[in-house]
Amino acid sequence: MKSTATFLQRVVILLCLFLTVLSVESANAQQQKQATWIWYPGDYEVWLSNQMQNRRTERGTFFPPFWRMDNHYVLIDFHKVFDLKEPEEIEIFTEGRYNVKLNSKMVNGTPKKLTIPAGKQKINIKVYAQDRVPALYVQGKTIATDASWLVTFEDKEWIDESGKVSDQSGTEWLNAGTWNFNAPDNLPSAFKLPTTPQKAAKIDRKGQSILVDFGKETFGYVKLHGLKGKGKVSLYYGESVEEAMSTEHCETLDHLDIDQPQAKDYVLEQSQAFRYVNIQFEPGMTIADVSMLYEYLPMADRGKFRSSDEELNKIWDISKYTMELTTREFFIDGIKRDRWIWSGDANQSYLMNYYLGFDSPSVRRTMLALRGKEPTTTHINTIMDYTLYWFIAINDYYQYTGDKHFIQQFYPRMQSLINFCLERRNQDGFMEGMAGDWVFIDWADGLSKQGEVSFEQLLLARSLETMAECATIVDDKEGAAKYAKLASDLKAKLFSVYWNEQKQALVHSRVDGKQTENVTRYANMFAIFFDYFNESQKQGVKQNVLLNDKVQKITTPYMRFYELEALCAMGEQDYVMKEMKSYWGDMLKLGATSFWEKYDPTESGVEHLEMYGRPFGKSLCHAWGASPIYLLGKYYLGVKPLSPGYSTYEVVPVLGGLQWMEGTVPTPNGDITIYCSTSQIKVKATEGTGTLRFKSKSKPKAKGASFQSKGNGVYEMKIEKGKEYVVSYKS
Amino acid sequence: MKSTATFLQRVVILLCLFLTVLSVESANAQQQKQATWIWYPGDYEVWLSNQMQNRRTERGTFFPPFWRMDNHYVLIDFHKVFDLKEPEEIEIFTEGRYNVKLNSKMVNGTPKKLTIPAGKQKINIKVYAQDRVPALYVQGKTIATDASWLVTFEDKEWIDESGKVSDQSGTEWLNAGTWNFNAPDNLPSAFKLPTTPQKAAKIDRKGQSILVDFGKETFGYVKLHGLKGKGKVSLYYGESVEEAMSTEHCETLDHLDIDQPQAKDYVLEQSQAFRYVNIQFEPGMTIADVSMLYEYLPMADRGKFRSSDEELNKIWDISKYTMELTTREFFIDGIKRDRWIWSGDANQSYLMNYYLGFDSPSVRRTMLALRGKEPTTTHINTIMDYTLYWFIAINDYYQYTGDKHFIQQFYPRMQSLINFCLERRNQDGFMEGMAGDWVFIDWADGLSKQGEVSFEQLLLARSLETMAECATIVDDKEGAAKYAKLASDLKAKLFSVYWNEQKQALVHSRVDGKQTENVTRYANMFAIFFDYFNESQKQGVKQNVLLNDKVQKITTPYMRFYELEALCAMGEQDYVMKEMKSYWGDMLKLGATSFWEKYDPTESGVEHLEMYGRPFGKSLCHAWGASPIYLLGKYYLGVKPLSPGYSTYEVVPVLGGLQWMEGTVPTPNGDITIYCSTSQIKVKATEGTGTLRFKSKSKPKAKGASFQSKGNGVYEMKIEKGKEYVVSYKS
Repeated sequence: MKSTATFLQRVVILLCLFLTVLSVESANAQQQKQATWIWYPGDYEVWLSNQMQNRRTERGTFFPPFWRMDNHYVLIDFHKVFDLKEPEEIEIFTEGRYNVKLNSKMVNGTPKKLTIPAGKQKINIKVYAQDRVPALYVQGKTIATDASWLVTFEDKEWIDESGKVSDQSGTEWLNAGTWNFNAPDNLPSAFKLPTTPQKAAKIDRKGQSILVDFGKETFGYVKLHGLKGKGKVSLYYGESVEEAMSTEHCETLDHLDIDQPQAKDYVLEQSQAFRYVNIQFEPGMTIADVSMLYEYLPMADRGKFRSSDEELNKIWDISKYTMELTTREFFIDGIKRDRWIWSGDANQSYLMNYYLGFDSPSVRRTMLALRGKEPTTTHINTIMDYTLYWFIAINDYYQYTGDKHFIQQFYPRMQSLINFCLERRNQDGFMEGMAGDWVFIDWADGLSKQGEVSFEQLLLARSLETMAECATIVDDKEGAAKYAKLASDLKAKLFSVYWNEQKQALVHSRVDGKQTENVTRYANMFAIFFDYFNESQKQGVKQNVLLNDKVQKITTPYMRFYELEALCAMGEQDYVMKEMKSYWGDMLKLGATSFWEKYDPTESGVEHLEMYGRPFGKSLCHAWGASPIYLLGKYYLGVKPLSPGYSTYEVVPVLGGLQWMEGTVPTPNGDITIYCSTSQIKVKATEGTGTLRFKSKSKPKAKGASFQSKGNGVYEMKIEKGKEYVVSYKS
Repeated sequence: MKSTATFLQRVVILLCLFLTVLSVESANAQQQKQATWIWYPGDYEVWLSNQMQNRRTERGTFFPPFWRMDNHYVLIDFHKVFDLKEPEEIEIFTEGRYNVKLNSKMVNGTPKKLTIPAGKQKINIKVYAQDRVPALYVQGKTIATDASWLVTFEDKEWIDESGKVSDQSGTEWLNAGTWNFNAPDNLPSAFKLPTTPQKAAKIDRKGQSILVDFGKETFGYVKLHGLKGKGKVSLYYGESVEEAMSTEHCETLDHLDIDQPQAKDYVLEQSQAFRYVNIQFEPGMTIADVSMLYEYLPMADRGKFRSSDEELNKIWDISKYTMELTTREFFIDGIKRDRWIWSGDANQSYLMNYYLGFDSPSVRRTMLALRGKEPTTTHINTIMDYTLYWFIAINDYYQYTGDKHFIQQFYPRMQSLINFCLERRNQDGFMEGMAGDWVFIDWADGLSKQGEVSFEQLLLARSLETMAECATIVDDKEGAAKYAKLASDLKAKLFSVYWNEQKQALVHSRVDGKQTENVTRYANMFAIFFDYFNESQKQGVKQNVLLNDKVQKITTPYMRFYELEALCAMGEQDYVMKEMKSYWGDMLKLGATSFWEKYDPTESGVEHLEMYGRPFGKSLCHAWGASPIYLLGKYYLGVKPLSPGYSTYEVVPVLGGLQWMEGTVPTPNGDITIYCSTSQIKVKATEGTGTLRFKSKSKPKAKGASFQSKGNGVYEMKIEKGKEYVVSYKS
């Protein structure tokens, strides 16, 4: 298996290099600008997410989402003004029926090629498609479709009786949406993730059945080699061997009706998630071999981590593989069941992505698919907290990428979504579950969702802060002031309502105007890394909530993510290291080859496979299981942006009990590499201006650097881009 | 040609009768309820209107609308609860991928047949389709899809960790949309209007060209019989012979690349409007004959009119044919160019339809396509007045049909549209054109659209009155009070601002807070049939505006419609009769075989064909040209509902100078037939309770009826359903 893949990979790499050389060559020869397919921003994401999210089946039965799925605009006008030094010929490719206007005058027919004269020229192309997203690809020498083209779904170009076109438009134009469809025949509507062959690790035959083990959790299309005969073939998929063997209860399966007198390879139509496949076929049929086509989103290998602890390295590798499996057309929750886009799950995928592939297009695609289109009639995924995570994710996206343009384009969608939330507040200004609202928080036994839950108000406050910042970015001064005031009022109010001085904690909720007695971890841990507590509150919460075993424990990696982040934010890296090694390490000990939707150390055996009242309901490959990537990158390697897009950043390495660690954290256009042992820190960054901060028992030394002592043995050093620093210190 | 059509019509009628008998038989035998295809209401209409409105070409160039085209929801849940006496098997057909739940429990796989047990049973079927509208057809013995099924685009049926489904839904359910797709293989997505063959009236051959005359304006697919050879064939269509002969300027054309070594019939792919077709083909090619497939919407032949005036009868017939041609998938404006749905044009088609085919599904389809979907970002067709006509049409629809259910279903879309209007008022509470708003009113030279146009405020007031009535229907008391107050405030204000006592008229507009000097007919004539004037104002307007030649004349049949209605509403039938005979009669004298978009008696020759700065820009078959149908039905036969759906109505025959007239006016479930001469009135109605009112110089007599004298020689008689009355009187 490995050699095949490697050989193929080599071919692909060589081919890519060849094509790159070719395209550079041809660009040099012709100075031709590279075109890309463009569309109305957000529409392709909605369309593609419809395709993906409606692929779910449960035991062969179609299982679509339960929230509203939006649709694209069917008729789009694309335009751009060019100033040409000399005439040039353009080629036009579209997805849909189209017409072309040059300087507002219709060009006859449906031109595939057109010569644009020299001078200032406005090209409008209007494309109609019902079944797919209207898309455009124009290639000339200097004219090429890209995100600088403007698009609208209503040009309002009426004419009067004399034929004169209206001159007061009122139409709003956005920049076109793009991804990476950079050739005329690379049609957006034909998008499919690539695949690569994978062999089975083990094949057991027994009469009319074959049990295949692919050695680890994987995703793709099963291939039956040399399938011959007439009759039924059934495939029962399992993330565990128990699941594959349970033809009655496995979550996914396929039944095929085969009639192949001659032996032929047969590839399943639908991709599935599995490690094991239990194949049963009728007498007289033969299957020579079984393999699969592994399906994946190609992504640069950027974030890295290694340390003195082999178990931790394994945790990081399996986390990375879990992210690889769940990063697809979009960031999805898990690969076995839903393959839906969930805002709360995706929020963690985004954060992990910033420390792994830094694939911003995937973040944007996912955020746009989640936001969908107007009108806003329900919470994202119907979940109140998931709407609010969407705002928080915007904030993070801007911090990590510095991409103002995305916020400028989608600020109106942000406004309408926050207005939707604000209109759903009760008379006290708090959000509580109304009919049709799912208050999720976490999968936790007996967790109350009644009344005004403190956690939701906290997320709302953070969302309003995000809105204030975005309003400033788009120069909406009135909005900025309004959202900032709403945020600070809400923060003040939630502390007066939920903070319990005796318990030294935010209580879980208020029901019928009365504080409940219950303290949960959720609001308390978020308030820590939102930096909403004063120092005394922080310490109180740490002792009375986070490190208090009497407070209901978190059993999902989902909320472990934030719990451990809160502890790290308070400098508890040693404690968190132990927790990581115990929680994720225990999953590895139980044979995990990807991380799970939920892990409860008090369960045993097949209990680990159960969820939602179904014996194999649990997903064994869930994005939110991969959080060590984020924790290790942000709180051990210690890298985070201090201003948008890493123009400034900090590196605060914390070993947390390790002997050494090293890694790479990607930035928008570069990366930061760190090595840290108990006596040496090495750091290098290719962009931005950084601050290295660390504790040392002796005065640190480094060639070409000076240190500022910040007291308490803390030192700071400036990191200039392109320079490598080797610091001697004593931990 | 005629005999073919007649023969075919007979076959069709016989077939229909046979099928009717068959379906009644089978219903008797099995007592099976008839199923029909269902969908989310409004979505099919949006989808179908996208198909239709994007068919426009201008000289072979694709020419789509300039306003936003909406799209359907891709994922729909359909459900209904049944109480079955005995188990029954259902068959399930869908447009799209689907699953089935019985009493909220998922049924395995994709069942095509399913046995539903006896007792109370809830069937949910969820259908996903991206390219067409998710649609469902279920047929059992007593279970059958129809408009009583409930539908939603978001069922919000999430489950908790234990697998329990959410019990607080918040989902809004509407009744399913339907039309007439009453068989499993009669797929909504495959809808096409039927066609019937028509022969040419005259074929002139001249070298490499053929000029075909179909004898009158027509619509459909040209058929080239025995087409043979290799080369280009071009078809230049003309509503006039001048247009067909003008290969440079005709509005529509088709260029074909033919390679047919053997002679074969060739039917054009795209339907076109024409009377003449100028066909040019390359040497070596042959075309044996030319005919066409006439495309039409089948509709019952209900409204009728005949009189002592043969020219008037011809006007009625050509009006009817104009309506037949422009009543298609939807009520469209004209058949040559746009084939778009325009709210102002459609409003007149609705009114004419009430006196012709009374095809309510066509009214509903058109209103839903025009309304489109949320969010509301622009006026309907981008035109301010066209948004307001939509409300007025709702009011008429309810008066004529009594269909409360339609209003109940779409009241939220009415509310959001009126809110859109209300939010666009200026600080004085008036609507004026904002960026992107087209203030249309009429095609008229130099008509000012600046400032606050009185006509628009008048339409807004009427729209608010409609909203008040609809609010009452849906039991929205608060809304009813709010809209009623807004309407009466606006009416009071518009009289104080626009009524000019000296001119005895509403002036055209106010610009920069000042009444303009200009008086136009628009607001004045609408205020008459809206009944907004007192008697003295009415008479003032009649003399100073309507019958005043110094006030700019109306040259479109569009506004002639309302002008003549206003005059009729004031009893000027004699005058209007002369106007009709002159205006429409003159078009006939100029050879019209359908009525035109615009007719200006001061023009001559090919000037009649010009519009929009193009020599053949004018449409010679425009729905708004058919208004005599409405005027003759409502103001001469004199029939109109007095309460919704004709539960009460009046018949006020007015000869207007005719010797006699007779006709039929359709009602929701029957019809009213009237004969009226100078000495006799015959009337019969099959539903409702009517009032016959007429003037007589002598005391009228009728068997089985009594008369009430209302003074001034006016008599009233009650019309009971099913009874025929023969009244002797003296006009």
